[in-house]
Amino acid sequence: MMEKAKPVVTVLGAPDEPQPPGIELLDGHVEVRSACDEASLRETLPGTQILLVTDFRTEALRAAWPSADSLQWVHATSAGVDALLIPELVDSDIPVTNAQGIFDKSIAEYVLGAILIFAKDFHGSLAYQRNHQWKHRDTERALGKRVLVVGAGSIGREIAKLTSAIGMEVYGVARRARRDDPDFKEVFASEYLHEQLGLADYVVLSMPLTPATEGMFGPEEFAAMKPEGRFINIARGAIVQTQALVEALEKGRIAGAALDVFEQEPLPAEHRLWDFDNVIMTAHMAGDFIGWRVALIEQFMANLAHWQKGEKLFNQVDKKLGYVVQG
Amino acid sequence: MMEKAKPVVTVLGAPDEPQPPGIELLDGHVEVRSACDEASLRETLPGTQILLVTDFRTEALRAAWPSADSLQWVHATSAGVDALLIPELVDSDIPVTNAQGIFDKSIAEYVLGAILIFAKDFHGSLAYQRNHQWKHRDTERALGKRVLVVGAGSIGREIAKLTSAIGMEVYGVARRARRDDPDFKEVFASEYLHEQLGLADYVVLSMPLTPATEGMFGPEEFAAMKPEGRFINIARGAIVQTQALVEALEKGRIAGAALDVFEQEPLPAEHRLWDFDNVIMTAHMAGDFIGWRVALIEQFMANLAHWQKGEKLFNQVDKKLGYVVQG
Repeated sequence: MMEKAKPVVTVLGAPDEPQPPGIELLDGHVEVRSACDEASLRETLPGTQILLVTDFRTEALRAAWPSADSLQWVHATSAGVDALLIPELVDSDIPVTNAQGIFDKSIAEYVLGAILIFAKDFHGSLAYQRNHQWKHRDTERALGKRVLVVGAGSIGREIAKLTSAIGMEVYGVARRARRDDPDFKEVFASEYLHEQLGLADYVVLSMPLTPATEGMFGPEEFAAMKPEGRFINIARGAIVQTQALVEALEKGRIAGAALDVFEQEPLPAEHRLWDFDNVIMTAHMAGDFIGWRVALIEQFMANLAHWQKGEKLFNQVDKKLGYVVQG
Repeated sequence: MMEKAKPVVTVLGAPDEPQPPGIELLDGHVEVRSACDEASLRETLPGTQILLVTDFRTEALRAAWPSADSLQWVHATSAGVDALLIPELVDSDIPVTNAQGIFDKSIAEYVLGAILIFAKDFHGSLAYQRNHQWKHRDTERALGKRVLVVGAGSIGREIAKLTSAIGMEVYGVARRARRDDPDFKEVFASEYLHEQLGLADYVVLSMPLTPATEGMFGPEEFAAMKPEGRFINIARGAIVQTQALVEALEKGRIAGAALDVFEQEPLPAEHRLWDFDNVIMTAHMAGDFIGWRVALIEQFMANLAHWQKGEKLFNQVDKKLGYVVQG
């Protein structure tokens, strides 16, 4: 019996990391090719059946697309697939899957940590500590405070679970309203966003970046928040109009922000955001727990097993919407 | 009908705060006297039926004790009553009650916040932020990590609830072992402390300061911890041999510490502890949520209602043990 040909997988990695850790798990299962930019992708795409995109920022596919003569499946090892969804791919029959689920719990822990830093003013305590200052303050409880999770997908849901678990009151905003959601006290439709922003102590962005959400957080949204409200973004920087956020912070229209994502990454060293006392900034790492790269490849291989058996792939992105639609 | 005489309450406050906020709630209910040191306490004690101690550090009672000619009840608006339990009071029939319950949830949030700061290295991120440095790192998950709560009283129990709620594995150490505890996976007897210290990712002290616990965390206890273990103290500073903690940190025998309490408070500005990169320090404020002072007086008044009706007081401290024994 002839051995069945192994599927050809092109790994599209970042230029500084063409072969992310974990890729070695593919050895023996598939034929692995490597690309990290337009030129190398153009070379590897012909004959490639599966494109495995490990660099969520890459835009190499757009130019290399014409070389995709055998492509049957695109998998992204990220939750966000915004950079990947070029019109040609969206209009094609090629399914796109993502890494939904891998980062959820880690991101939710990050959000809970940020909330507790704000509530307990650990931020302030660390500043006093640097000055060797003993400075007692009364601080807030998280208990009973209101969280608004904008984007009730799998990450938003996990954020709702963790914040509810410590006694916070958690509401959601999504495309469709729903009352009987197990993880949210209530999920409001998008048209209630402004009203809900005005009630929330913590506003957490956890929606995908799509044409519909790009720049959707601007001056009006920050103005709609309570002056005591804190803003947390673990989604994508481009959902927020950065200048509007800076102004809201400068003018005290909101009480603070925790930001893991930025319009421009890395954030330039001279950016105004670095210096706010009430802003916590991290380098797009909220979901990146130790072991995440291997977990991503393991998830891809689980989906590969489906593909090889001709079964339905899981985590299929609705390419028009730009994210995996919750069941 | 003659009006019943109002009970005489002496409020023993700190010299810089003889009348803490909330005391005004007592107006009309009791006759309030104020003291803030030995001399004033000696003057107000004669005829005082109830001593309301709002300064958990005060040692004024020892010298003023002979003036306590009518004392029937001592209430402390703190969880810890270590400074208050002079032998004369311990040997008397006078009940001592404390503020058990008021600080529990707030302290548990503080502990969870500290754990998430360590897990997500927010501490490191804030340092990079000050330098305008974009620095991606993989960080830990809290999920599945092992917490050892030393002291399974009402504060320890609340810490167990919150940390369990986010998926940590929570064990306790207490005087008595118990397997069927709803809030801990298992509570081990004290003789297993060292063994358990070696297994824990986070060690949290939440026991009272008593003659039995004073200085009980010394070189051997820190040596028993994992090098990756973090140490969190929200109990009392004197439970820990500070020099042993400093050495454990200096020699990397433990991975970090979050400290809200210190042998000497305020901690002197020149103390070595201020400067560790992996230490989070706060000014004995973990439990002090906004509104705590009023909550404390409300709790006292609830107990006062029991006292006035001749009913059993709640939160009675076992004076020999130095804390409220859990039911």
